[in-house]
This record gives sequence, C-alpha cells and structure tokens, in this order.
Amino acid sequence: MRIAVLAGGVGGAKFLLGVKRYLGRPAFGPAPADEHLITAIVNTADDIRLHNLQICPDLDSCMYTLSGVSDRQRGWGRADETWTVSGELAGYDAEAPWFSLGDRDIATHLVRTRMLDAGYRLSDVTDALCRRWQPGLTLLPMTDDRVETHVVVEDPAAAPDADRPAGTPGPLVALHFQEWWIRYQAKLPALSISPIGAEESTPAPGVLDAIAEADLVLIAPSNPVVSVGPILAVPGIADALRATAAPVVGVSPIIGAAPVRGHADKCLEAVGVPVSAQGVGRHYGARSDGGVLDAFLIAPDDRATVPGVTVAGQPLLMTDPEHTAEMVAACVQVVGRG
Amino acid sequence: MRIAVLAGGVGGAKFLLGVKRYLGRPAFGPAPADEHLITAIVNTADDIRLHNLQICPDLDSCMYTLSGVSDRQRGWGRADETWTVSGELAGYDAEAPWFSLGDRDIATHLVRTRMLDAGYRLSDVTDALCRRWQPGLTLLPMTDDRVETHVVVEDPAAAPDADRPAGTPGPLVALHFQEWWIRYQAKLPALSISPIGAEESTPAPGVLDAIAEADLVLIAPSNPVVSVGPILAVPGIADALRATAAPVVGVSPIIGAAPVRGHADKCLEAVGVPVSAQGVGRHYGARSDGGVLDAFLIAPDDRATVPGVTVAGQPLLMTDPEHTAEMVAACVQVVGRG
Repeated sequence: MRIAVLAGGVGGAKFLLGVKRYLGRPAFGPAPADEHLITAIVNTADDIRLHNLQICPDLDSCMYTLSGVSDRQRGWGRADETWTVSGELAGYDAEAPWFSLGDRDIATHLVRTRMLDAGYRLSDVTDALCRRWQPGLTLLPMTDDRVETHVVVEDPAAAPDADRPAGTPGPLVALHFQEWWIRYQAKLPALSISPIGAEESTPAPGVLDAIAEADLVLIAPSNPVVSVGPILAVPGIADALRATAAPVVGVSPIIGAAPVRGHADKCLEAVGVPVSAQGVGRHYGARSDGGVLDAFLIAPDDRATVPGVTVAGQPLLMTDPEHTAEMVAACVQVVGRG
Repeated sequence: MRIAVLAGGVGGAKFLLGVKRYLGRPAFGPAPADEHLITAIVNTADDIRLHNLQICPDLDSCMYTLSGVSDRQRGWGRADETWTVSGELAGYDAEAPWFSLGDRDIATHLVRTRMLDAGYRLSDVTDALCRRWQPGLTLLPMTDDRVETHVVVEDPAAAPDADRPAGTPGPLVALHFQEWWIRYQAKLPALSISPIGAEESTPAPGVLDAIAEADLVLIAPSNPVVSVGPILAVPGIADALRATAAPVVGVSPIIGAAPVRGHADKCLEAVGVPVSAQGVGRHYGARSDGGVLDAFLIAPDDRATVPGVTVAGQPLLMTDPEHTAEMVAACVQVVGRG
C-alpha cells in the first residue's frame, strides 16, 4: 500500500508513527523491506535562519521522532539534549534568545546549511540527513523554495500614541511565524497569516508523484493554517490532491473547541475559521467542491457536517503509536480501502 | 608605555599575559584605566572555514586566554568545554573530524561567521567579541583579508606507483595548514609553506599605527614560519617594523634544538632555517640590514650570533605570567628602555 501524508511537525510526526504501525512496521527506526511505501510531505514554512543556520523544525521533528531519537517528553528536539551553545550565544547577546537550539540539533543545522550553501536542494539535504537517521519512510519537504509564514500584528515594540483614538490599530509589523509562535506564544492577535513566497514556489521533487501514485492520501492532524495551509499553498499540490485516484482523508486537530496541542485556535481565528472540527473540515472542503477532502475523522464527541465529505468519529488522542495506528485504520475504513 | 606585540596563538597568548603583568595589570581579564596601551597583532593565516564556520584559532586563543576563560591545561579552547556538536557532526560523517570544535567555542564561530557574512570586517568582529571577553588589551587581526597558510606535501592519499624510481617525489598536494598540523601532526615532510593571499592583503585598521606609535615592539616566541611569518608577509607590516622609532625585540621560540611547544622545528626545516635560536634570529635578521630585529632574547644555555642584533640570555619558559613578565622586562632592558 502506498500512503502519502501531508504533515507538520510534532503532531505530524506522531501521526506518521501511527501510519508506520498501521502498515506493520516498527514505529521507530528504519523500514524493513516490504511492499509498502509511505511518503511524508512536510511543511517548511516554519523554517527560519538564525545565526546563519537554516533550521527546519517540522522536517527535524519528523526525522528525529520517526528514527526514535527525539525527546518524547518535550515533544521536539533530540533526547539527551544539551544547551551549551545556546547559553554562549546568549552570552554574546546574539539574536533570538527566545528560540531554543540544542547542541545535538545544531549539528544537524550546520550540516544542512553547509549543503544548502553549497547548492544542494533542501530535498537532497533531507535525504542525506535521513541516511543517518533512517526514519523508515520517505521524508520530503513540500518545496525546495523559500517559503516563510509571516504573521501581521500590531507592533509590540511601537511607542504608545496617546492621540490614537481607542480601538484604532497601532502601527503593524510582520513577524516571522516562529517569533509570533515562540517569542510571543501566539498571544499577539494576528491580523493575517501568510506563507510568503508560496505563490512562486514549486513542489519538491517527488511530491506530486507521491500524491498521484498513492493508494491513500492522509492529512495529519497538524495545524490547518500554519502547517497544512502552506503545503496546500504550494501551487500544484492542492490540484494533485484533487486529481489523484486515491481517496483523501483528513484528521481533525481540534477536539471540542480546542487544539490538542499548540495554538491552532489562534491561527484559525486569524483566518476567520471557527475553532471546531466542523470549522476545519469545511475549511479544507470537499474534493468534489474545489476542496481537498473525501473524508474527515473527528473525535467521538464532536459533530461536524461538511458538504460532500464523509465524516467519521474516532478517538483522536495520539497517546502512543498503537492508538495512532487505530486512527489510520479508521481513515482507511471510512473510505472503504481497508 | 605603548607596546605592540606580534603574536600567534597559544604561545603568543601566554606571552601577552606576561606583557600585561609587566605593565602591572592583572594577567587575566580587563585592563584598569592606566597610561599603558598594549596592542596584539595576531596571525590569522591559521584561520579555517569548517562547517561554514569561520574559525580563528590564534585570535581565539588570545581572546580566551587573556580573559581567563581558556583551558589552561589543554592550552587552547574554553575551560569547562563540552563536545556534543562535534560528536554529532562525526555522526553525520561531516568534514574534518580531526579538527576539535568545542560547544562553547562554536558559539563564538557562529557569531563571528554571521557578522562576517553580514559584511563586517574581521577586525570589527574581533572588537565585538572582545567586548564580551575583555582581554585587557587591543586585539587586532594582522589583516581583514583572507590569508591561509598552505603546506605542499607528497599527497598522502596518492596511490603507490611501482614504476616511480626510488627517491622521486610522488604527486604533490597543497594542504591547509590545519590539516597538515593537526590531522597529520606535521609528520608529512613539507616541501613549501606559504601564506596564500598575503601578497594581496593589507594590514587591518590600527596595525600600522600601533607599530608606528609604539614605545616598544615585541615579537612573541611564536612559530617564526606559520605564526610570525604570515604577519610579516602582509605588505606594510615589515616596513612599519623597520620604520618605527621604537626598538623591536624578538624572543626565541627555540630552546636548544627544539621548539618549546608544537612543530616549529618541522616548519623551520621546510623553509631551510636551522632549528636553533641563532637560526631564528638570523631568519628575522637585523633591522639595520633589511630584517626586523634590534634585539633578540634567547635561553641562557643557548648561543647565537646575529649580525646587527643585540642578543641577550633569559629563561624563556612561560610557566606562569610572573615568569613571563620577567621575559618582557628583559626585552625592555636589552634595548635600554626600562
């Protein structure tokens, strides 16, 4: 069976563990020789260059998690991580002290940045890094081009202006997604969230083929706005989802009225989407109606009506790869491919 | 008193501790407000870019040692150093596993490289780094231009050629100094040692003024070929030494027939200079005769005749800053400036 998965970082990585288990593979580590093919198409709009290091949080979360070297407690980065370099960078008053960079992780960024600066494509680099880590599936960046999510907010550094009438917005500023998400914990109301550069980007090699040749396409329960949104914004990918012979099944990242993890609620509000499974389902929309979904998995206690989309209930907490594999089984079942 | 010092890395740094002590300053840490001015003009031809990081071993040895954060046992790098990033880089089979890069040290290289890539000059960057470290003197790179010592050797990776007559050299290769020095421990016979780029380089801002305005110029007991040699190869610096009103005093890095530390013997042999205090003294030569020295300090048991140069004996082991200060005092005394 060939499964293509659109995925973000931490949640996407956990979901991919379940996809591996569903196909009978070990959750962590390399794939045995079998007839299955899993391709993860991963968001890169969270990527950021700090200290001249090109950092790809979502790709690395997938790579580390799937190979079994991630910190499962913290949810991101390497296990047994140390923070010596970061401490020294802070000693130099270097940029972005709010962005944690572990020592083990920094080696990945050094290797990646060196290869990128030497002219390799991000997809080549990811492949090279995965030769060490053996995530047990094909990890593809959504694009080799630079796409960066920027969030427009009222400038938190702007001087107060006593003459500004109440309710009038102050001067605006566009922040890199990571600054908004980590430094400001998504607490600054977002006036817009845009994957800058997406319009001019092209899918990375292998992305469109993976979707076209899949038996099943899954959209992981990742952030619909800043993880899945940028992937769908790469010209050609949404069209490929609409054109593939495979059914496309999404999984809701919202249970009740809250995201399972992170600040997806703040992101959905910013783009005017209700914070509910139904809101996300309708945001993705039916394949038959210009959207991308055939079916949508929601939590058992939720209700959602999405025109043209089959909705099914299933426990959605990815507490371990076995439970997550059951979510994947439910995705297969709802489109009758089991 | 204004003292300018030409210096390499570990030995140069130790010598500078003695210069600080000679002037009554604390050996380690910032300078109190006083009438003295010490300028260290430091070799940069050992610099190497690895993993896209611009590494300046001699500048950093001086910076760390003078500020008191170096590892005094090992002689280079930071105290309390850890090696997590290096271990991970080796896990990626990244370049140059023979070059040790500590985690604390890497932060310095990240900050430096970012500033250089942003267009700052190495002298600006060094000044910025020293604002954190407060070495207690002015630390200048010899040049802001790229100069790299390359060593020509018989290619150690060349396939053996049974048809080559005995005694005929095999194919030659130019190695970066660090590869020859660290990877091969200077054991590959050097056919030539050249500071590539020196001819087109210019002295960093402040270098010529420091020499012209000095009351005393000292040449630290650093490697004459690969530390002091490149400094003198920067057009303008040797001329400034010949033109300054200050006396120029060198200190022998050779005691008996061996360097105090490192592989200076191998370097001297490569350029045809006898491995002795006299050999080094004559290599530098008299200011009155196209060389750079007025006086030369050698170990008490050594003998040297250098035409046009006053030679004096003095214990030269830099066991601690107090003993090293006595060496500096002897330099002052030999030229009658005490």
